[in-house]
Amino acid sequence: MVRILGVDPGTARIGWAVITEDKGVLSAREYGCISTPEKVTAELRLKQLYKEFCKIIKSSKPDVVSVEDLFFESNAKTAIAVGQARGVILLASSLSNLPVASYSPVTIKNTICGSGNAQKAQIGKMVQRIFKLEKIPTPDDTCDALAIAATHAYSYKLQNQMEKSI
Amino acid sequence: MVRILGVDPGTARIGWAVITEDKGVLSAREYGCISTPEKVTAELRLKQLYKEFCKIIKSSKPDVVSVEDLFFESNAKTAIAVGQARGVILLASSLSNLPVASYSPVTIKNTICGSGNAQKAQIGKMVQRIFKLEKIPTPDDTCDALAIAATHAYSYKLQNQMEKSI
Repeated sequence: MVRILGVDPGTARIGWAVITEDKGVLSAREYGCISTPEKVTAELRLKQLYKEFCKIIKSSKPDVVSVEDLFFESNAKTAIAVGQARGVILLASSLSNLPVASYSPVTIKNTICGSGNAQKAQIGKMVQRIFKLEKIPTPDDTCDALAIAATHAYSYKLQNQMEKSI
Repeated sequence: MVRILGVDPGTARIGWAVITEDKGVLSAREYGCISTPEKVTAELRLKQLYKEFCKIIKSSKPDVVSVEDLFFESNAKTAIAVGQARGVILLASSLSNLPVASYSPVTIKNTICGSGNAQKAQIGKMVQRIFKLEKIPTPDDTCDALAIAATHAYSYKLQNQMEKSI
């Protein structure tokens, strides 16, 4: 069984999801969203994010962290801010000696929905189906974190199968 | 006396400089550049940056951290990478309970050279003059960190004078 911590890094909200993959069966264990107050300084928000994320690592004991890779921010200021949050996620993972897997938005959409152009609503439906959830998780950041974790589960499984078939 | 740690965040190299401001006299105490190996993963580079930066904070005991604010990266991928390093710098400062001051490149150039369009060579000459150095510090990242620290010294002094004159 592999335990995967998926993360959707953002500025105000950071989605996270702990899933397991066992013989091809994916299960959502815990998921949620870290919100940091908008009116405090960047360094205090990052400290809060770091502390909350370290708590999640400690309690969920993942084998690997799966994070969305970001290339397409149109606004440089937003890209810097999201990069700062992503840096804190990578650092916290690395300080816990966890390997990190990165997946581009296109790879995630392709893996979960079969199309790199899939819309938010499609991802939501597929996440609900994959994890057999009663409803689509909200907010989008949490739902995306489940999709990012599932992407690693599928990629990891595929890689394992390929290695076995060689 | 105020002890300022200036930081120029980047991907491969992060310039840093410890300066003091005492009754209007600026002195460069220690400065250098943290380099992280290009061929390792982002999370390992960030861990190395974090550890080296924490060592500098511990040994230099600054009162404040002055960091360049970045808005103008043309390439989103570079912006994310620089943001990640900047996030680690802000986090390490915040975890040490240090206040952080941010200055835009234009403010730094204006403060040091009197023009927001100043070139690298001008900044180098002014840094050499301000700190009475035998030669212009290299690489540029280190020289920029001295300029960023000096910008805070001047802004802080100005603010103090204004408060006194009210």
